[in-house]
Amino acid sequence: MRTEMIILNETRDVSLTAYLLDAGGEFKHMMKHPAVLILPGGGYQFCSAREADPVAMPYLAAGYHAFILRYSVREHAVWPNPLEDYDRAMALIRSKSEEWNIYEDKVAVIGFSAGGHLAAAAATMSKNRPDAAILGYAVTGEDVRACNPSAPDTNKAVDKDTCPCYLFSTRSDSVVHILNSIGFMQALAENNIAFESHIYAYGPHGFSTCDTSVQSADTIVCSRTPNWVPDSIGWLRDMLGEFGTNGMEPPVCKKYVTADHEAFLSIDCTFRHLMTNAAARAILEDLMSRMKGSTENAVPLDSAEMSIILNKMPLRELLAFSRVDRNIIEMIDGQLGIIPNN
Amino acid sequence: MRTEMIILNETRDVSLTAYLLDAGGEFKHMMKHPAVLILPGGGYQFCSAREADPVAMPYLAAGYHAFILRYSVREHAVWPNPLEDYDRAMALIRSKSEEWNIYEDKVAVIGFSAGGHLAAAAATMSKNRPDAAILGYAVTGEDVRACNPSAPDTNKAVDKDTCPCYLFSTRSDSVVHILNSIGFMQALAENNIAFESHIYAYGPHGFSTCDTSVQSADTIVCSRTPNWVPDSIGWLRDMLGEFGTNGMEPPVCKKYVTADHEAFLSIDCTFRHLMTNAAARAILEDLMSRMKGSTENAVPLDSAEMSIILNKMPLRELLAFSRVDRNIIEMIDGQLGIIPNN
Amino acid sequence: MRTEMIILNETRDVSLTAYLLDAGGEFKHMMKHPAVLILPGGGYQFCSAREADPVAMPYLAAGYHAFILRYSVREHAVWPNPLEDYDRAMALIRSKSEEWNIYEDKVAVIGFSAGGHLAAAAATMSKNRPDAAILGYAVTGEDVRACNPSAPDTNKAVDKDTCPCYLFSTRSDSVVHILNSIGFMQALAENNIAFESHIYAYGPHGFSTCDTSVQSADTIVCSRTPNWVPDSIGWLRDMLGEFGTNGMEPPVCKKYVTADHEAFLSIDCTFRHLMTNAAARAILEDLMSRMKGSTENAVPLDSAEMSIILNKMPLRELLAFSRVDRNIIEMIDGQLGIIPNN
Amino acid sequence: MRTEMIILNETRDVSLTAYLLDAGGEFKHMMKHPAVLILPGGGYQFCSAREADPVAMPYLAAGYHAFILRYSVREHAVWPNPLEDYDRAMALIRSKSEEWNIYEDKVAVIGFSAGGHLAAAAATMSKNRPDAAILGYAVTGEDVRACNPSAPDTNKAVDKDTCPCYLFSTRSDSVVHILNSIGFMQALAENNIAFESHIYAYGPHGFSTCDTSVQSADTIVCSRTPNWVPDSIGWLRDMLGEFGTNGMEPPVCKKYVTADHEAFLSIDCTFRHLMTNAAARAILEDLMSRMKGSTENAVPLDSAEMSIILNKMPLRELLAFSRVDRNIIEMIDGQLGIIPNN
Repeated sequence: MRTEMIILNETRDVSLTAYLLDAGGEFKHMMKHPAVLILPGGGYQFCSAREADPVAMPYLAAGYHAFILRYSVREHAVWPNPLEDYDRAMALIRSKSEEWNIYEDKVAVIGFSAGGHLAAAAATMSKNRPDAAILGYAVTGEDVRACNPSAPDTNKAVDKDTCPCYLFSTRSDSVVHILNSIGFMQALAENNIAFESHIYAYGPHGFSTCDTSVQSADTIVCSRTPNWVPDSIGWLRDMLGEFGTNGMEPPVCKKYVTADHEAFLSIDCTFRHLMTNAAARAILEDLMSRMKGSTENAVPLDSAEMSIILNKMPLRELLAFSRVDRNIIEMIDGQLGIIPNN
Repeated sequence: MRTEMIILNETRDVSLTAYLLDAGGEFKHMMKHPAVLILPGGGYQFCSAREADPVAMPYLAAGYHAFILRYSVREHAVWPNPLEDYDRAMALIRSKSEEWNIYEDKVAVIGFSAGGHLAAAAATMSKNRPDAAILGYAVTGEDVRACNPSAPDTNKAVDKDTCPCYLFSTRSDSVVHILNSIGFMQALAENNIAFESHIYAYGPHGFSTCDTSVQSADTIVCSRTPNWVPDSIGWLRDMLGEFGTNGMEPPVCKKYVTADHEAFLSIDCTFRHLMTNAAARAILEDLMSRMKGSTENAVPLDSAEMSIILNKMPLRELLAFSRVDRNIIEMIDGQLGIIPNN
Repeated sequence: MRTEMIILNETRDVSLTAYLLDAGGEFKHMMKHPAVLILPGGGYQFCSAREADPVAMPYLAAGYHAFILRYSVREHAVWPNPLEDYDRAMALIRSKSEEWNIYEDKVAVIGFSAGGHLAAAAATMSKNRPDAAILGYAVTGEDVRACNPSAPDTNKAVDKDTCPCYLFSTRSDSVVHILNSIGFMQALAENNIAFESHIYAYGPHGFSTCDTSVQSADTIVCSRTPNWVPDSIGWLRDMLGEFGTNGMEPPVCKKYVTADHEAFLSIDCTFRHLMTNAAARAILEDLMSRMKGSTENAVPLDSAEMSIILNKMPLRELLAFSRVDRNIIEMIDGQLGIIPNN
Repeated sequence: MRTEMIILNETRDVSLTAYLLDAGGEFKHMMKHPAVLILPGGGYQFCSAREADPVAMPYLAAGYHAFILRYSVREHAVWPNPLEDYDRAMALIRSKSEEWNIYEDKVAVIGFSAGGHLAAAAATMSKNRPDAAILGYAVTGEDVRACNPSAPDTNKAVDKDTCPCYLFSTRSDSVVHILNSIGFMQALAENNIAFESHIYAYGPHGFSTCDTSVQSADTIVCSRTPNWVPDSIGWLRDMLGEFGTNGMEPPVCKKYVTADHEAFLSIDCTFRHLMTNAAARAILEDLMSRMKGSTENAVPLDSAEMSIILNKMPLRELLAFSRVDRNIIEMIDGQLGIIPNN
């Protein structure tokens, strides 16, 4: 392993530490590595050492290069300084992908507490969006203003270009209220973005990896909490790809949950989305009119009850739910599949 | 183990199956057992066998008696029939606690999909509230009307008497949208109720325990998903107590997250809550006026920024955050501790 | 689930309890189940309830029917009574495979302490050998005579027909010394039989599943110990097959470790075994004479040092170790592959 | 984290790489760290990179400084060169304990394959014995001569000063036969040394951490295999101590399994050991003569059957087994406790 330390902004005391794994040679199936960029917490007053090196280690053990960004804090934390620091760091990492043997499309960001706010900002409003984001007991809502008055509410910034996210925290966190994470998840859900989330029953704020070497063994914290580390690594493998014999395999989980953002329409789009397209609407209305008289359907598609879930459920499930014949389902999928998704 | 099957309502085909563990004898530290009451899913059209016995087994292995309620479905599912079924079952279980060696204050409910809706209704609006509720890919919001038009939105029913809850589901569930679980968590958070939650990145609806004997090994489902079972058992031990040498030990996690619902005030109450009490408000206003001139405080308590988090954060954290001296914190706790919480 | 209780021998108070999982119907990929036959411990003085039902539950949860045999104890324990009880039980289970929906070639035995002795006897000297055996802190060596003077040393009975075995215990077990398990492993290794083994650093004898509902939470026992349960289930899936969409898939791990017991020879046989066959010996001697002059080989096959490992290592590894060309290796495999293994 | 690289022997190309964790500061409960010294494998022909850095990472994540020793290989591997390299490295580490913030009595060695042989030699025959040893698919028996003719059989070298050991390997390892590990365990058992051991059903030789970034995801290896890493960390915490609020707590598991090596005798010594001491023998013979007539004892202590286990079982268990009264047991313990163990 090689270590490098790069000053990104001397005035604001911003630096990037790089822990770079060996590639090639005996590691013949790993000519390159994916990477994580770690953003420690500290209320935008400092960058915690407890959320720096100890976080890097398990990802290094899992085959990820690890970078730690010490971003602008205290008087330098005025927005958008920290986000600029992030953008510069991510641009540098990707520009050095050849030299450092990095998959430039497989760089995740990991942030904790205020660093989690910065990670959420990176995921939602940066120039150089990460490929995945891990948010640990992150301040994602307007609460951030209590520690950094100029910082934005990232829950409101979630958009279609937001990367897949992994969130974790404890329910009883008395510093960053759980409504932060819930609000962020809601925004991700409304934007069709993939995510995973683990809210553990109880424990303090700022537990980092929750390894006993960081958070001592006598801490009152729920026994599932340390699982966030291996689970986040499993999630990264789902979202960025697993290590195969010849480099990395394709991801098994897509960024978008429904097909509402694919190039062409399909029955995996939601009913609501399909109805916004004139050609698709014609097909569905014809279907519904034919289904009207049928007594076989459990709940009619045009009922008041059904309208509740129409904007959430893929057409495939709605049709299965309404007991539409499998042949008709496939025919409709064929008809939709030639309509471009605009 | 003994098995019993009790008909609760012949007309509506409602039954309770009991799997009762041995107690006493060689199990000398277990004269009684806690219990789970399982509510299988099936869209209020049937009670799925896949969410009955296979769910009972891991809880039996963990020392919980297991009950399975086959509740009113199809034409009998009109509300409040299923909730009445639940209430009758829970009343029966508690009334037989001596005969069946049950801790009557340690009976959890576990429901899946539509059964998860019924479990959420049990937790929020039943006469015989459970002591804990496990909700698996549960329909908790108004979406329930798509499968049972007369059933209520349980997200809106969460109240102070709701028991601690454990929620799990997959983000990509295409039958029950993840916004159901998010809405329920939000309501729990707003009501100060303890919970744990695991949203796994991807997988189908209706995976039950996700053991390969129920959900075959070639299912496309995220590898963390089966963890919900042992994690829910760990959570039950946190909320209902662990098995000690002389019966069950006290729970390590409280039902309410802040002290806003305890008998007397304390600095573990939220600032917002304390300010609703005249005597407490006098103490806090005095404190704030004395802190005003101080330059030591990072963020003043009466600033616009601080007001954002005042209704969420316990006073203890706010004072620590504002760098108030430890002696003053303890003095204030003493003053608050004699004021009854009305 | 159905429960049955069958008296196998009234005089000796021998009974078989059957916990039978549902098959077919909603469980469409499980028309049949594999099974476990549990032999509780108790020093041949009684059959412990702590090693009966609590052991059945996790295997039921994993899709295995569970049977509990209460075998001959105290004055009835004189050998071979307990082994006869086992043989009768296993014969009955297999004869009822149609009625009970059992894969008759997928029935494992699980025994603890003295019941582990009986399980080891079943694996090594019964008429109706099990398909796999799980031995928990089992008395497998001559120590058994301290609790049952007429019982045999099973370590000496391991043979080529012994089934794959899974052993677990704690190093500090003060009742059954760890040399019992080590001796059994050695015998399995010498007979080319697959096994898995977990010896945990410390803990008492007789911990059963080590779930806190059986072995209370304040027991001084190493934290890895409860892993034997899920690990043994993973092992059963490796040895007996995983649950696929259309019934059970083939096992991924073979009963024999080297190919010394296959129908035809191959380079996956050990050198020692190949040299016992005249035709194979001719091929190998020719190879060795040609390799003699070569300076490319790290260690010559006929050196004194190499002879040490000749009886353990498959030829494939020896050739690779001696840096024999890949083409030559394949050629030799082809030559060996037509020689019957007598 | 700081990195240092120290040349230990230029001629033989021996070096020590140090990965040193931060101590003190925000890590206020960690003024010092325990450490691991890693000995990569490579058949004494090279030091494998796959068993160097990837092994260091999980222990760094767990709060252990990590050292990697590249020891004498090829023509320099003639014994005792590699062991001298080890001794020099361990002496250096302990001498720098102040500078590097190391608990000098908490330094474990970890070796793989041929490096596992060197680790076993360190544990059994070095001048500077480690405090614990982790042996991965290690060549511990005479087989080592196939790759290093001058290297000793470490199974025969196990003695009373051997440190506690943790062994892991796969049953089907076709390069290092499982009898190596079994032989080592047997020697540890005969010397009363604590150990833990995991033999996984199947997998290749040389899997290192078995993380997919080292051993690609399509490797045919048993799913439990990667558990050796976290389990070995749990074991180190049992043997060397857990991280508490004020530095490290005392170990929960002792080096010796019975009390045969303590300063004074007790009923936790084995019967055989007690009988070698004249004063203790007098006490026990008196007890046995008094017990002779008793009909309450299940198996008499002086029976032929009992003699089988007398040299293995602590007296405490023998007395309990023979149903000796608890008061008598305590009285005997008191009598033995004043007799020095010579």
